[in-house]
Amino acid sequence: MKNKILQVVGYSQTGKTTIIQTVLAELTKIGYQVAVIKSAKSYKERENSKDTGKYLDSGAKISAGIFDNSLQITIAQKYSLQQIIETIDSISKNDVILIEGFKMSEYPKVLLWKSNELHNLNEFNLNELLLVYCSQKDYNNHNQLKELSEKKSVPIVFGMETLVKEIMKYLTS
Amino acid sequence: MKNKILQVVGYSQTGKTTIIQTVLAELTKIGYQVAVIKSAKSYKERENSKDTGKYLDSGAKISAGIFDNSLQITIAQKYSLQQIIETIDSISKNDVILIEGFKMSEYPKVLLWKSNELHNLNEFNLNELLLVYCSQKDYNNHNQLKELSEKKSVPIVFGMETLVKEIMKYLTS
Repeated sequence: MKNKILQVVGYSQTGKTTIIQTVLAELTKIGYQVAVIKSAKSYKERENSKDTGKYLDSGAKISAGIFDNSLQITIAQKYSLQQIIETIDSISKNDVILIEGFKMSEYPKVLLWKSNELHNLNEFNLNELLLVYCSQKDYNNHNQLKELSEKKSVPIVFGMETLVKEIMKYLTS
Repeated sequence: MKNKILQVVGYSQTGKTTIIQTVLAELTKIGYQVAVIKSAKSYKERENSKDTGKYLDSGAKISAGIFDNSLQITIAQKYSLQQIIETIDSISKNDVILIEGFKMSEYPKVLLWKSNELHNLNEFNLNELLLVYCSQKDYNNHNQLKELSEKKSVPIVFGMETLVKEIMKYLTS
């Protein structure tokens, strides 16, 4: 069985992590094996154990640490999203891969939207858009969202519960 | 070419990380691609980014984060040292794999020794022992070290520079 891939995209503070955690817990409950990929903005966010940082700074290509029940591997190399997916698939069989962010990538995705003068729908790759989650008010005031919904038949979802239900339907179908 | 594997073992505060960093820098200088594996004692040492921890806690089998120039993958599963080596080899071609710790594993290894009433040579797998690094004083006062050196012909090295040179000789031969 080929695994299902879903992106959850949106500006910060739109609830991406919470949605992914909720879906993750639901999928785990029914026995799915899930991998998560997230994009982090800055090097600072990589909180290695101290030694991992030292080894990478000294020139290691890969630094791996084993811990009680998990293995952490850091690879000093640029990866495209597709390469990450391939690497993860070579490490373990995953039923579902959830991706937080990577707004310009072209995998099936849900968009969590909050209107704000700095937010621009054109920053997202919407070719594989499954649905949009936003408030009723943002929907009413945003012509581009209405257009997506009316001309391109992209479902708009207002409630968090419906959102999770729709995502689960897609991932388990 | 099959990669060379070397373990650096010893109790804490014997200089394992420093030696590995030094060798790593030397190998990188001559163009070798090196991976490092280290065993960490406690879950607390796994300093994930916040979201990685959340995803693993919510049931993710794998959590991967991409950062400016590196990819960090955390896999919630127990791995043997051999499985880690296989996983790392499947991710990239490494000329050398340096391993910090895993004292009971049976790969070619150097032992960094400091005498102490709590330290016991029998806690180490010495079947593939290449050399021992210790002080002249510890060597003189430790019968088991003398035995290793005299009966099993394991070289004893007193100076840090010699140690690095010997390790480099082994890894690049």
